[in-house]
Amino acid sequence: MVHPDRYFDPDPTIRKLASGLYQSVAGLPLVCPHGHVDPRLLAENEPFPDPAKLIIIPDHYIFRMLYSQGIRLADLGIAPLDGGPYEEDSRKIWQLFADHYHLFRGTPTAGWLQHEFETVFGIEERLSSANAMEVYDQIAARLATPEFLPRALFDSFNIETLCTTDSATDDLAFHRQILEDDWAGCVRPTFRPDAVVNILAPGWKAEIEKLAEVSGRDILKLGDYINALENRREFFRSLGATATDHGVFSPYTASLDETAAEALFQRALAGEADEADAKHFTGHMLMEFARMSVEDGLVMQLHPGSWRNHNTSLFNAFGADMGCDIPVATDYTRNLQPLLARYGDQANLTLVLFTLDESTCSRELAPLAGHYPCLRLGPPWWFQDSREGMTRFRERVTETCGIYNTAGFNDDTRAFPSIPARHDVARRIDANFLARLVAEHVLEEDEAAEMISELAYNLAKSTYRL
Amino acid sequence: MVHPDRYFDPDPTIRKLASGLYQSVAGLPLVCPHGHVDPRLLAENEPFPDPAKLIIIPDHYIFRMLYSQGIRLADLGIAPLDGGPYEEDSRKIWQLFADHYHLFRGTPTAGWLQHEFETVFGIEERLSSANAMEVYDQIAARLATPEFLPRALFDSFNIETLCTTDSATDDLAFHRQILEDDWAGCVRPTFRPDAVVNILAPGWKAEIEKLAEVSGRDILKLGDYINALENRREFFRSLGATATDHGVFSPYTASLDETAAEALFQRALAGEADEADAKHFTGHMLMEFARMSVEDGLVMQLHPGSWRNHNTSLFNAFGADMGCDIPVATDYTRNLQPLLARYGDQANLTLVLFTLDESTCSRELAPLAGHYPCLRLGPPWWFQDSREGMTRFRERVTETCGIYNTAGFNDDTRAFPSIPARHDVARRIDANFLARLVAEHVLEEDEAAEMISELAYNLAKSTYRL
Amino acid sequence: MVHPDRYFDPDPTIRKLASGLYQSVAGLPLVCPHGHVDPRLLAENEPFPDPAKLIIIPDHYIFRMLYSQGIRLADLGIAPLDGGPYEEDSRKIWQLFADHYHLFRGTPTAGWLQHEFETVFGIEERLSSANAMEVYDQIAARLATPEFLPRALFDSFNIETLCTTDSATDDLAFHRQILEDDWAGCVRPTFRPDAVVNILAPGWKAEIEKLAEVSGRDILKLGDYINALENRREFFRSLGATATDHGVFSPYTASLDETAAEALFQRALAGEADEADAKHFTGHMLMEFARMSVEDGLVMQLHPGSWRNHNTSLFNAFGADMGCDIPVATDYTRNLQPLLARYGDQANLTLVLFTLDESTCSRELAPLAGHYPCLRLGPPWWFQDSREGMTRFRERVTETCGIYNTAGFNDDTRAFPSIPARHDVARRIDANFLARLVAEHVLEEDEAAEMISELAYNLAKSTYRL
Repeated sequence: MVHPDRYFDPDPTIRKLASGLYQSVAGLPLVCPHGHVDPRLLAENEPFPDPAKLIIIPDHYIFRMLYSQGIRLADLGIAPLDGGPYEEDSRKIWQLFADHYHLFRGTPTAGWLQHEFETVFGIEERLSSANAMEVYDQIAARLATPEFLPRALFDSFNIETLCTTDSATDDLAFHRQILEDDWAGCVRPTFRPDAVVNILAPGWKAEIEKLAEVSGRDILKLGDYINALENRREFFRSLGATATDHGVFSPYTASLDETAAEALFQRALAGEADEADAKHFTGHMLMEFARMSVEDGLVMQLHPGSWRNHNTSLFNAFGADMGCDIPVATDYTRNLQPLLARYGDQANLTLVLFTLDESTCSRELAPLAGHYPCLRLGPPWWFQDSREGMTRFRERVTETCGIYNTAGFNDDTRAFPSIPARHDVARRIDANFLARLVAEHVLEEDEAAEMISELAYNLAKSTYRL
Repeated sequence: MVHPDRYFDPDPTIRKLASGLYQSVAGLPLVCPHGHVDPRLLAENEPFPDPAKLIIIPDHYIFRMLYSQGIRLADLGIAPLDGGPYEEDSRKIWQLFADHYHLFRGTPTAGWLQHEFETVFGIEERLSSANAMEVYDQIAARLATPEFLPRALFDSFNIETLCTTDSATDDLAFHRQILEDDWAGCVRPTFRPDAVVNILAPGWKAEIEKLAEVSGRDILKLGDYINALENRREFFRSLGATATDHGVFSPYTASLDETAAEALFQRALAGEADEADAKHFTGHMLMEFARMSVEDGLVMQLHPGSWRNHNTSLFNAFGADMGCDIPVATDYTRNLQPLLARYGDQANLTLVLFTLDESTCSRELAPLAGHYPCLRLGPPWWFQDSREGMTRFRERVTETCGIYNTAGFNDDTRAFPSIPARHDVARRIDANFLARLVAEHVLEEDEAAEMISELAYNLAKSTYRL
Repeated sequence: MVHPDRYFDPDPTIRKLASGLYQSVAGLPLVCPHGHVDPRLLAENEPFPDPAKLIIIPDHYIFRMLYSQGIRLADLGIAPLDGGPYEEDSRKIWQLFADHYHLFRGTPTAGWLQHEFETVFGIEERLSSANAMEVYDQIAARLATPEFLPRALFDSFNIETLCTTDSATDDLAFHRQILEDDWAGCVRPTFRPDAVVNILAPGWKAEIEKLAEVSGRDILKLGDYINALENRREFFRSLGATATDHGVFSPYTASLDETAAEALFQRALAGEADEADAKHFTGHMLMEFARMSVEDGLVMQLHPGSWRNHNTSLFNAFGADMGCDIPVATDYTRNLQPLLARYGDQANLTLVLFTLDESTCSRELAPLAGHYPCLRLGPPWWFQDSREGMTRFRERVTETCGIYNTAGFNDDTRAFPSIPARHDVARRIDANFLARLVAEHVLEEDEAAEMISELAYNLAKSTYRL
C-alpha cells in the first residue's frame, strides 16, 4: 500500500529523476542527531508494550488530533493528574483510534503510520474500524518476538547514531549501561539545560539543588552555577554527547554585566525573579552557552518560539506535552544579533537554528545562515516536518544559503518505530526537490547526485560532528 | 470560454483525477453559511437593476482595482458624501469598466465574472471595449425576465441555505417576510454585533439606544447590555440564525473583573472611553460572546486583522467600504489564549477563525485547530478567496489539522449572481488539491472521494449546524 | 550548458507555452530603472580589471556565501580597514572561489554566473577546481579586447536605459561626461538622499556640509535643508534622473508640525539627536519627499526592512556591505498610512514599494497596491531576486492587484556583466508564471502574450517614466 513512488511529483520527468536520486540514498544508514527516544528503551531492551501504549498514548501528534474532534484524553488512556478514571483497556483505545483514522488523511502521521505498519509490522491494509482488532493482534504478536526488541529494531533500522535529549542533571545511567553492554549501537546523550535555566518554572529551585548535587558543588553564586553547567557538559561529552539543545520562548540574547547578572541570579534563588528577569537571564545564558560551545566544541541547537501548554485547563488536568504547544511569531534578526556578532565567526562554534515560524525562513534564517560561519539551519521542525513543510523550507532557503548551510535531517521523535518512516519522507522530499531543479535545468544530474547524499547523510553527520 | 478543466493542474494524471473528483460534487447544492447578500433582495424579489448597478457599483473588488489605476470613484457611479456630481449613466460606467477589463487578468474577479457572464447570462465572449454595449444589453435583457428574479436565481443556483449578515439591532423584517411567504428558499440571519461593541465608533451611543429599544429594556448597566444582547440572539435564533460574526481589529480576548467591566462600560456611555478601553471592552465581550455561544449554541465566527478605511481621505469623501481595508499582521496564539483556555473544550462551542494574515496559517491557526475541540478554520478570506490563496491554505493547514478541522467554503459575497462561480472555484481547487495528493500517493482514491464531498458540502453544513 | 528551456516547468503543456512567451520578449531591449552600476565605468570606458576583481571581490552575494563556510574575507581579496594583509593575487582568489563553487548550487548566483560565463565570455564548461585557471585566462583574454569595454558591452547587451544610484551630494560628473561624450548610451542618475537623512550616522554632519556646498547655500534651519534637497533633485532631473530611492529601516511616515520638526533638526545639528529623533525625522522626511515627488514628478522608491551591518565585528574589521545585511519583519499598513492618506491619490505621484519580508506580499502590499493609485510594487528584491522568489511574488500579489500595479523588473546590481543574465531569469519566470495560468485556463493565450511584454519591458518604462 505504500507506493514506491510516493511523494514524487507526478510529472514523468521529475518522477523519474526523483526516484533515481532517492534510490541512490535509500539504503544509507540513518543518522539521528536530534530526537526524544527514551534511552531506557535501549538500555533495558525489554519488549515494547501493546500497540496502544507503543503508538497512541505517547504520541501527542496522534492524541491531539483526536482531542480536536471531541475525543476525551482519558478515553485515549491518558491519566488525569487528579487520579480520576481513564481507559486502561488498550484494545478499546486502539479501536477508538481506528474509528477515527480518517482524521489523519493528508497528515504526516498517516504517512508515517502506514509506512511503519507495512515495513515494520507487515500490515498492508489501511487501518479501519473493521480491521482494528486484527491489526492490533498482528502488531502485538510481532512485538512479542525477539526481532522486535528495541536493540534488534535499532540494528534492523540501520541506525548509525541515535542522539537522545537529556536533562542537565540526568545521571545518564542508561547511556552508561548501553556503553558498557556488549552491543554496538551508538546512542549519545544531548545536553538540554532548559529546566535549570528557566528561573520562573516552579521546579527551578529543586533543579538547582539537583544540579549542585550531581556536579558536586554548592551553587550559591552565578559562578558556581556556570561551573556546574560546564562540569555537566564535560560529563555529557565523556559519554559521547556532541551537542546541546535549548528550548526557549524567544531567541533573545544579550550579556548582562557581571554585577547585574549576579544580582539577577540572587533574586532568582530568593524566588523573587519576574518575567523580565527570566527573559534577561535566558538571554544571558544563551550567550554563556555559546561561549561554552566555543570552548568545548558541543554543537548548540536552538528551538525557540513555542508557547508551551497553551491550553491551561488541559495542562492543569493532565500536565505538560498534551499536544497544545502553539507557535508564535519569532524574531531572529534582532534577538540573535548580540550572540552572532560576538561568536558568529568562531571556528569552533556550530549553532543550529530551528523555527516554527516559516515566515522567517526566507526573511531571516537563510540570510543569517548565508553569512555567519557558525550557523546551520535545522530541518523543518514539528508541524513543518512534513512533505509540504520540507518542500517549502527548501524552496525558501536554498536560493539564499544553499544546501551546505543546512543541517540535514532530524527525526526529532520519541516514537522509536517511526524513525525509518520519517527519514524516508525527508529523503523522498529532498530527492523530489532536487529532481525538479534538474528538470528545470537549474542543476545538472551529477550535482543533484552529490547533493542528495549530502542531504540524506553527510550534512547531519558533519553538522553534529558525529 | 470557461474551460471545463479550468483551475486543474495541466499534468495529465492530476487533471484526470481532479476532474473526476470535481464532477462528483459539481451538482451538490450550495451551502452558503456566511455572506453579505441583502435579504431585502429575496424578500421583495424585485428585478435586479441594470448591469452597472448590479455588478460594478456595489463591488469593492471591482472598483478598487479601477481606482488603483487612476479612475475616479465618481466616474464609476459612486456618490460622494458631499452631494457632489457622479456618473449616473450606467452605460457609461459599464463602458469605462469594459475599457479597463484587462486590469483584472489573473484575478479571481475576472474568473468569477467570466463564469457569471457565461453560465448566468449566456455571454461567451470576453468583455472588451468593442462589445461592452452589446454585453450590457444582453445582461439587461435577461435581468428583465422572470427567470432572473432573485428567488428564481436562488432556486436555479441550487442554494440550499443562504445566511446573511445582520446588525444586532436589525428587526429582521425581510427575514420574517421570506419565512412567511410561500417560497421554500432557506435564508437565515447571522448575528453581527460589531456596531454595539465598538465603543469608539461615532454612532455607538445611538446603536445602544437602538439596542435598548429593540430589546425592550433600558441599558444603564453592563448587565442590561449583556441581557439585551442575549435577548437579540434569542430573537435571531427564532428566525433561523445558527451563527454570530465578529469583526475585530485584533483577536485580543480577556475577561475583566465585574467592577472594572462596569466602570469601563460607564465611561463608554459617558463618551469618555479611550483606545485602551475599546481594546479591553472588545476583548471582554469576545469572552462574553463565547460564553453565550456555549449557552445558546450559536456558532461564533471571528474575522480579525483588517485596518478599515485605511485611505482616510477617501473615507471622508465617500464613506466606508471603498476598497481600502488593508490587513495587518495578526497574533492568534497570544490573543485567543484566555478564551480558548476557558471555553476551548466546551462541547457546545464552535468557533470559526478567519485570517487575512497567511503567515499565521501554518504557524498558529492549524496548530490551534489541530488541538482545541471548539475550533474550525474558516476558508481563505477576502484577498485569499482565490485559486492561489485556497491552494496555499490547504497546503499550509492540512498536514497539521487535517481537513476535518476546517469549515468548508463560504462565498462571503454581496454579489448574489456570483455565488455559483465562487463555489465552483472552491470545489475545483479542493478537487485539484486532493488530486495531487492522490497522484503523489498520499491519499488513495476512495479517501479523496470522501474528502471532496466533505469539503464541497458536508463540512459547511456540520460546522454551521445547518 | 545553459539550457534553452531552463526555469520552465517540465510539464510539456506549460513548457511549450512558457517557451513561446519567453521567445516573444527575449529580444526586447533591457530597461534597467534601478541598479548600482558605477557610472565611472561607463564614463571612463576603461577595460575591466581581472576576473577576480570583476566578479568576486565586489559581489557580496558571492563572498558572503564563501564566508558562511569559513573562508576568510581577506583570503578573497577584501582589504581589512586596519591595513592588515589580504590576498592580492587574483589567480589565487579565483582558484579559492572555484574550489568552493559547489556551494552556489541551486542559488541564483550560480545561474547568473553560468549565463554570464557562457553568453558573455563564451565558456560552456562548469567552473571547477580543475579548470579554474583556464577559465580565468579565457575571461582575462576577453576583457582585454575592445568588445569588452564597458560601453561596447552596454551596447551589445541591448540596454535601453541604465539608472545608477547616486548620493544626494554627488556632483554627477560621470553622468555629465557620458552625456557630453559622443556615445548614445542612456545612463541616468537616481537621487538617493539616505546619507543626508540618517541623522544618527557618524558622517551625517559632514554630509550636511557637503550638501550645503553643492547646493550653494548655508543649511542652518530645516527650511534651508529642504530647499537644498529640492535644489539637488532639480539638478538630478537636469541630468536625466526620473526617480529617487530611499533606504530606511522602517517605512514609518508621519509629518511633524513645523516647530517640532525645526527643534528636531536643531538637535541633530547639535549632535544631540537620539534613536526616537532619527525615526521621527526619517518619517517626516519621507512625507516631505512624497510632497516633492508630487511637485517635481520624480518617481519615489522605498526599500525598507534591512538591518544593515548586522555582524558588527565584521563591520568594524571590513566596513559596510560585507554581505551581512539581514531583513526584519516589516509593517507597511500602519507605517505608510499617513503618507498614503495624504498623497496616495495624487496623480503625479508614483511610489514603488519593495520588501524583504515576503509575508507582507499578500497581506499588505498587494491590497495596498490594489487600491492606492500612486503605488506600484517593485520586483522581488535581493534575496527574493530568484526563480522561487519571483514565482512566489507573482503567485501572492497577482490575484489581488493584478500585474498592472507592479513595476516590471529591476536588476538592482552592481555587477555590470550580469545584467543580461538577471533580466533573462525574470523574463523566463514571468513567462513560466503566465504559461501556467494559460495551461490552467485562467488566462487565454492572447492575454498572456500582452502581459509578458508588459512584464518584460513596458511596465518598467511606464512606472519609471522613461
